[in-house]
Amino acid sequence: MLSKSQIKLIKSLSQKKYRNSHGLFIVEGIKGIREFLNSEFELVSIYSSGENFGLKDDYLELIDDRDLKKISSLKTPQKALAVFKIPNPKQVGQKGLIVTLDGVRDPGNLGTIIRLCDWFGVENLVCSRDTVDCYNPKVVQASMGSLTRVNIQYLDLDEFISAQPELPVLGTMLEGENVYKANLPDAAILVMGNEANGISDKIIDLLSKKISIPQFGRIQETESLNVATATAILLSEFRRGSSIEK
Amino acid sequence: MLSKSQIKLIKSLSQKKYRNSHGLFIVEGIKGIREFLNSEFELVSIYSSGENFGLKDDYLELIDDRDLKKISSLKTPQKALAVFKIPNPKQVGQKGLIVTLDGVRDPGNLGTIIRLCDWFGVENLVCSRDTVDCYNPKVVQASMGSLTRVNIQYLDLDEFISAQPELPVLGTMLEGENVYKANLPDAAILVMGNEANGISDKIIDLLSKKISIPQFGRIQETESLNVATATAILLSEFRRGSSIEK
Repeated sequence: MLSKSQIKLIKSLSQKKYRNSHGLFIVEGIKGIREFLNSEFELVSIYSSGENFGLKDDYLELIDDRDLKKISSLKTPQKALAVFKIPNPKQVGQKGLIVTLDGVRDPGNLGTIIRLCDWFGVENLVCSRDTVDCYNPKVVQASMGSLTRVNIQYLDLDEFISAQPELPVLGTMLEGENVYKANLPDAAILVMGNEANGISDKIIDLLSKKISIPQFGRIQETESLNVATATAILLSEFRRGSSIEK
Repeated sequence: MLSKSQIKLIKSLSQKKYRNSHGLFIVEGIKGIREFLNSEFELVSIYSSGENFGLKDDYLELIDDRDLKKISSLKTPQKALAVFKIPNPKQVGQKGLIVTLDGVRDPGNLGTIIRLCDWFGVENLVCSRDTVDCYNPKVVQASMGSLTRVNIQYLDLDEFISAQPELPVLGTMLEGENVYKANLPDAAILVMGNEANGISDKIIDLLSKKISIPQFGRIQETESLNVATATAILLSEFRRGSSIEK
């Protein structure tokens, strides 16, 4: 049986201000929880309607599906919900490709981009402070455990970029150079912009190269690619060269 | 004021069986409706809380936001909802790149893939009969008007593929050839599989080439790319050659 205060605490973690004040976030679903258990993330407690994850009682509370429904952030609750501590972000490594997000707001897009960073071996993801929180339950759900393998920091993007004068800064803009013809460096900062407004003016001023994904449709009617699919194509372009050389 | 029978009809169109029996589907939001008005789709009626789209009263009914909320399929209703006729699909053209979907179930994924086809100039999208319906309100929403520019058909996928013996059939599979090294033909059938199970056995038997997107992360832990992001990367690979030649 869950106490009222437990339910209140866990429910509150769907809001960023309570995640930050408690330093906690939730992971739902057996598979996702297993990935976090196998990572450096520190477990606080698991509420499960069956699966025990090989854990002792200290960390595990078996509850029924009715109680699980009370604390879940999902329409269809999964069989377990875990509370983990939000870790201190590691220093951003200064090598390789660094992906930065300038005001990405949609949790599904951020989750997909985290998964893409993981797939394409991008270790560092730097988000502007107005980008959606990566411990938002929807982001955790969409990132499918990749959150345990990508180092994510929230910083003032202009300060971060200005502090790396040795790295070229590439951003996607409609009038940019055809990405298929562009010479893409191995070490760089790639900036992806907000869903509606693209990259902010302050950051545009810091770009050393503007690139674009050409459109092949008959007429220029299609607005733009979704930021997550554009990130997929760009990361693929950054990596394909090294894949062919092998 | 909306009548009860109007509300009932419109609400019913969120279900596939009623869309099919009435031959109607809904589009929400001023921008989306404008795109459909500028296409070959045939308008039945618009319910709007302000915008009149330059239309005569025959097609337009001005209603208040409370009534709009009653007929909307969205959590936050937009300022207008339109009912259009489902058109008869055109014959699938036999040239160029044809994208086929084998059991894609998520409306957001199908919407994104339709947008990608539009961007990359793929005119024909062939879906297996168990793929989510493209007139599902969430698909219409996610496709952002690209639905008006891509010809979509629901067919028995194995019969369709078998009827095009002259076209190579490419499918994404984990053990496939590195797509960055593969020779991709201009005219082909590209098969994308179900979110959980990939391409079905029946269709695997029909593939002439298996391709894969290599993983660059440290360990092979990341499960797989989402089908929409994988489609983005593959369509980019199919088109980049012609873009460089220009």
